[in-house]
Amino acid sequence: MLCEIVAVGTELLLGQIVDTNSAWIGEQLALAGIDCQRHTAVGDNRERMLEAFRDALGRADAVIVTGGLGPTHDDITREVVAEVMGVGMVRDQALVERIEARFGGRGRTMPANNLRQADVPVGATAMSELPGTAPGLICPVGEKVLYAVPGVPWEMREMIEGTVLPDLRERAGISAVIRSRTLRTWGRSESGLAEQLADEIDRLDAGGASTLAFLASGMEGLKVRITAKAATDAEVESILDDEEAKVRAIIGPIVFGLDDQTMESVVLDELVAQGLTLATAESLTGGMIGSRLTAVSGSSRAYRGSVVAYAGDVKRGLLGVPEGPVVSEEAVTAMATGACRVLGADVSVAVTGVAGPEPHDGQEPGTVWMATCVDGRVEAVRARFPFDRTRTREFTVISVLDALRLRLLARRGA
Amino acid sequence: MLCEIVAVGTELLLGQIVDTNSAWIGEQLALAGIDCQRHTAVGDNRERMLEAFRDALGRADAVIVTGGLGPTHDDITREVVAEVMGVGMVRDQALVERIEARFGGRGRTMPANNLRQADVPVGATAMSELPGTAPGLICPVGEKVLYAVPGVPWEMREMIEGTVLPDLRERAGISAVIRSRTLRTWGRSESGLAEQLADEIDRLDAGGASTLAFLASGMEGLKVRITAKAATDAEVESILDDEEAKVRAIIGPIVFGLDDQTMESVVLDELVAQGLTLATAESLTGGMIGSRLTAVSGSSRAYRGSVVAYAGDVKRGLLGVPEGPVVSEEAVTAMATGACRVLGADVSVAVTGVAGPEPHDGQEPGTVWMATCVDGRVEAVRARFPFDRTRTREFTVISVLDALRLRLLARRGA
Repeated sequence: MLCEIVAVGTELLLGQIVDTNSAWIGEQLALAGIDCQRHTAVGDNRERMLEAFRDALGRADAVIVTGGLGPTHDDITREVVAEVMGVGMVRDQALVERIEARFGGRGRTMPANNLRQADVPVGATAMSELPGTAPGLICPVGEKVLYAVPGVPWEMREMIEGTVLPDLRERAGISAVIRSRTLRTWGRSESGLAEQLADEIDRLDAGGASTLAFLASGMEGLKVRITAKAATDAEVESILDDEEAKVRAIIGPIVFGLDDQTMESVVLDELVAQGLTLATAESLTGGMIGSRLTAVSGSSRAYRGSVVAYAGDVKRGLLGVPEGPVVSEEAVTAMATGACRVLGADVSVAVTGVAGPEPHDGQEPGTVWMATCVDGRVEAVRARFPFDRTRTREFTVISVLDALRLRLLARRGA
Repeated sequence: MLCEIVAVGTELLLGQIVDTNSAWIGEQLALAGIDCQRHTAVGDNRERMLEAFRDALGRADAVIVTGGLGPTHDDITREVVAEVMGVGMVRDQALVERIEARFGGRGRTMPANNLRQADVPVGATAMSELPGTAPGLICPVGEKVLYAVPGVPWEMREMIEGTVLPDLRERAGISAVIRSRTLRTWGRSESGLAEQLADEIDRLDAGGASTLAFLASGMEGLKVRITAKAATDAEVESILDDEEAKVRAIIGPIVFGLDDQTMESVVLDELVAQGLTLATAESLTGGMIGSRLTAVSGSSRAYRGSVVAYAGDVKRGLLGVPEGPVVSEEAVTAMATGACRVLGADVSVAVTGVAGPEPHDGQEPGTVWMATCVDGRVEAVRARFPFDRTRTREFTVISVLDALRLRLLARRGA
């Protein structure tokens, strides 16, 4: 079973929008065990859409088209697909009612334009999902199939997951379950991790039940993805559990979370579990640590606040940093204890450093002091990041939170 | 002159990387006055690359290929292009020396693999830019042309701007200069702005020297892009100046900046110009205002710091917020004056609200109080954002900074 993706939209060609849909669908297809050899983007133009759809159907067994299903006259995917199928259009009365219900549910009346969205090629079937007002369509073309889904990412995703992937897997006769699990790590480079896991990767390459892949994701950590294939859900989960245990045994506590867990959410959960509150004292990150922590819903259970001490005399006046250099062990230690005291928190993290591009306080850009205060005891560490301003700040955020995570784990004897 | 873009890389098909290159090149082509009707992505596979390059050359006059020019054996763009050209490969001795110089300049010796990057199809020309170690190639194919550039975005951009666009414009006989200028605005919806500018857009559509387009960009503001075409640099700049003045006369001070200026950089520049220092007091944004301000290099000239008061008793204890509801005019007013006092700043902004998804303090998610303190006088305003947690926080950041910007402009009588 070979699949292709065609994204429709002049705004994609003009670069007004980046096509993230095709990348996302490509990933889902790979995880579902379906080959995809080409992505194409074309504008909202009948002839060029027709050519692209036909080209793709000529090469592949199935084509997924995103976009061009809206209510305006630019949106012509439905009509062009009918032409490819060699059929006319028919108004689907059940669809009219479903689309009207979408509007009724929001207390609005439906513009007449939206009725166009209930017109489908004869022989096509509307998908059962209708997260917006644009229906997705399953369109048989001879022995092959074309799926048309909206370009709005969250509408598209619901239909790909709910209808397209199961349908493709059934057509392809794939009964195996393919699933992946991501271990998020911090503290080791990609090459370092690859070296440490080299024997395990060799073992898997020689015929293991799963595969490993690495993906560096900046402030989100360095991800190790385990992918496994088996006959049933239970079997695939068991393979993933087994391989996760093997990888953890090799790389240890640098794994901070799984899948959608972030460093922030993991640290906050651990604080809540231990009944501790957190404060931060930030200089070079300017509030980014607090901003990331409070992006997590429910962070108020543990997070009390921050003193962003960007000016030197704020560090001294508010946090009790002694006279002398502000990018130093003494300064960051005083900031960490000051944060606990001033904000009334049990534990704290503090950072001070030189984001660049200019040196500061006699220190080169990338020089960062990070401290954690747990049970009244401060531990400080100096780093020298070889990055630009943005990455230096981002790496500081995840590094200092990771230092706190490791101390919290040690505290409960984990 | 019709152009197509082909991106090479299995990681694009698998969704491990989003293809931002094609969007960026598409935008540059549009600005250069060159039509582009299709983007394609294929994997690192000889046959499928061959087919994609030939398809594209069949439809278009020029094809831009990104990726597959690295030193490893996966990188086969050079060889496949030679096959499309119907020629062999030759080692370009001048290129060998240029690539070696790139390594020498970094004090490293060149791995033998990198010599492959000096092999070019007979008849192809290496581009003059060499930002990395992968040379870009101009490859004539009959009357048509194929440009091969690396997939690394900053290497690709340098070659597109330096060689590909000028060469395409020359081939297309385009001597006109096309340039655009972006006015960044805040405070009005896209439809509101379109309505206000409707007459001007009609005037331009009827034969004006420039065009207007809108682009909503979240926390970066709503952008109004003016694009103009003329025979010379001086003429095109004069048209842009003229149209910018017209648009500003219609939409007024909601224009906060031009091109790469952000709300943060504009506010910081205005503070420096007026010799004022700034402090912030943040609750629902949790440090995001400070983080954005300090992302600007040189922000320490005006920014002193922030009290992130996430917990209610931190608001009261540190900022002097009175007993009572913390999402209220009284609370945000006390936060704004408290920020100036505690952090020793001339002016301040303060925000408190409910990011969601749960209601808080009897208030619905999206309810936000924002305050600015200038010359000791606080102005507060209430907003009700219909967004999720992330967008509510982001809109709060730019909205409160915009309120400060307008007060600073009024202060110096602008």
